[in-house]
Amino acid sequence: MTQILVFTDFGWRGPYVGQLKSVLAAAATGVTSIELQSDAPMRDPHKSAYLLAALVACQAGDAVWLCVVDPGVGGPRRPLICRCGGHWLVGPDNGLMAPALRRLEARGVDCEARVIDWRPPILSHSFHGRDLFAPVAARLACGEMVESSVVEPSSLIGWDWPADLWQVIYIDAFGNAMTGIRAGHVGYAGVLMVGGRRFVYARTFDEVAPGQAFWYENSLGLVEIAVNRGRAEDLPGIGLGAKASLVEDV
Amino acid sequence: MTQILVFTDFGWRGPYVGQLKSVLAAAATGVTSIELQSDAPMRDPHKSAYLLAALVACQAGDAVWLCVVDPGVGGPRRPLICRCGGHWLVGPDNGLMAPALRRLEARGVDCEARVIDWRPPILSHSFHGRDLFAPVAARLACGEMVESSVVEPSSLIGWDWPADLWQVIYIDAFGNAMTGIRAGHVGYAGVLMVGGRRFVYARTFDEVAPGQAFWYENSLGLVEIAVNRGRAEDLPGIGLGAKASLVEDV
Amino acid sequence: MTQILVFTDFGWRGPYVGQLKSVLAAAATGVTSIELQSDAPMRDPHKSAYLLAALVACQAGDAVWLCVVDPGVGGPRRPLICRCGGHWLVGPDNGLMAPALRRLEARGVDCEARVIDWRPPILSHSFHGRDLFAPVAARLACGEMVESSVVEPSSLIGWDWPADLWQVIYIDAFGNAMTGIRAGHVGYAGVLMVGGRRFVYARTFDEVAPGQAFWYENSLGLVEIAVNRGRAEDLPGIGLGAKASLVEDV
Repeated sequence: MTQILVFTDFGWRGPYVGQLKSVLAAAATGVTSIELQSDAPMRDPHKSAYLLAALVACQAGDAVWLCVVDPGVGGPRRPLICRCGGHWLVGPDNGLMAPALRRLEARGVDCEARVIDWRPPILSHSFHGRDLFAPVAARLACGEMVESSVVEPSSLIGWDWPADLWQVIYIDAFGNAMTGIRAGHVGYAGVLMVGGRRFVYARTFDEVAPGQAFWYENSLGLVEIAVNRGRAEDLPGIGLGAKASLVEDV
Repeated sequence: MTQILVFTDFGWRGPYVGQLKSVLAAAATGVTSIELQSDAPMRDPHKSAYLLAALVACQAGDAVWLCVVDPGVGGPRRPLICRCGGHWLVGPDNGLMAPALRRLEARGVDCEARVIDWRPPILSHSFHGRDLFAPVAARLACGEMVESSVVEPSSLIGWDWPADLWQVIYIDAFGNAMTGIRAGHVGYAGVLMVGGRRFVYARTFDEVAPGQAFWYENSLGLVEIAVNRGRAEDLPGIGLGAKASLVEDV
Repeated sequence: MTQILVFTDFGWRGPYVGQLKSVLAAAATGVTSIELQSDAPMRDPHKSAYLLAALVACQAGDAVWLCVVDPGVGGPRRPLICRCGGHWLVGPDNGLMAPALRRLEARGVDCEARVIDWRPPILSHSFHGRDLFAPVAARLACGEMVESSVVEPSSLIGWDWPADLWQVIYIDAFGNAMTGIRAGHVGYAGVLMVGGRRFVYARTFDEVAPGQAFWYENSLGLVEIAVNRGRAEDLPGIGLGAKASLVEDV
């Protein structure tokens, strides 16, 4: 059965995620909606997009993705529906969904993009997640289409962004620093330079001594900087946006 | 289908919201319960009440509201059920629900208040949300009434509070400062003074320059102080409880 | 109907709890899964175990407990299923579940422990919660057993831990400091020494003056240090791991 996965930068605070879920529950009876992640990099569709792409790529079954990192809400940015095989992604045209589409397309999945023409009776200026995107996601989850116009995927913002983002894109509650680089693009012999510091590969936390830093392939398939029983975010130079590169002379 | 919306000051931490949801799921099979907001102003039924009133007023469909901001738990305060048209609100008589009732009543909605006489077999001293209010909310969501006595709404604490609260009542994850003032009571030409600083109206974030402060009508219909791509809470004088007023000499 | 209760140290941040819930929703259609608590003491199965034991002991109905505080993930620790009467607990063999089992067994509940032999087609090195424990919990909630081998409960790590943990094991959003001691093991005349300070018993917050510290039996049946309308965690010496003892010379 279809799930609706909610991906936002709203934080845990406030009524915003709850209001999305309330709209979804009312409009898509019997469909499970799940708060997948509410701390996407705030007001940062660029970093958020690479996180979302990794989440979509490692999701076991098809889902409707309600994606709201939308600093330009109320401005001219287009509202989009993207279909990739059995997945639907709904959100703003600000780069947020493009890397996920590109990644699935590269796997041979059939992708399509549409601009949403439908408008709700009441549309606030600041919360299209609740008023526009959630009702659309609910209808898609129920197997209905909404008024929309097919556009070239290549017209999407972010369509020309590179396949990997060589930066720290997310720091989790354990202090681990996730990058936008797929581990398969580095190779386990690869030595990484992040924030002026070298990191070698380990398969698991247990393979290094307590307090030692390393990189590993995280559960989303991304390169992640970690410290066994410590917090990588406390290392100098490791923060959101820290640049990463391969050390060539190993 | 009825939803149960959970509104508390429990924070995201701890098992408390989860325990409410567990009670609701066991007692109201098939009813969706949603964590609407868990960071109502802590131990502050006064500010929380104006936030709740705005949430109730902008809710699209009817719901059962489980409302727990209850610093007097274990003391003599009365447990209440309030019915407003198709909405049910359950929680303590400490002002939390009165502004919502007054607001719906002012729209012509039929309202009724009841003191809950029913008591559970086991009632802890410190968590009536789990032991008393959640079972009551579940039964109401299933269409059952519980033992209770009708009281005059005017006997409720908070019944005589003003329609708007001219203060900052909530600061969200984006740093926006929500007041308890309905935007319609100010008018878009209104200039606001909050924390010793003037704020003029803008319709959307995009209408002002990055870094500029303004007020706008937020998605709950309230006056909110914001900074385009910044954090209003970082402005001097803007914090929870900061007084707001209209500048008369504009 | 069975519930799945999710107990982890993942924090509210990140996609991890959402990914568990997504796996559960896909594999156990119609079963309600609830984020019971996501801030168990981080990487600390010892303290987490006493919190979990209290939660299990005060749960009204049977449930499947998905328990993930798993700092040794990817190492040699065993994956376990424990059955205690109608409850199922799933998680790592690192002490996390043993106190709950011992406590139910002491009540006369029939308990059994099994090592999980089943492995999923894809098993990440760092997220067995998603890849191994959640699918197992989903199958148990659906009434299916998974490939597993009965082991002696006494072989579980933590089986020989004491019945109470005389420490602060958790601090909640209100600043209250929960210990691992059952209130019934102290008695209401008991004076506690925690962090070099004495605490006497009060039944409720309202029984002491604002700002006064005391201990009370919390809604989980544990001894908790609190301050009426204040934050116990701000008292000197009160923090996670602070030792507690009975004052004998009262």
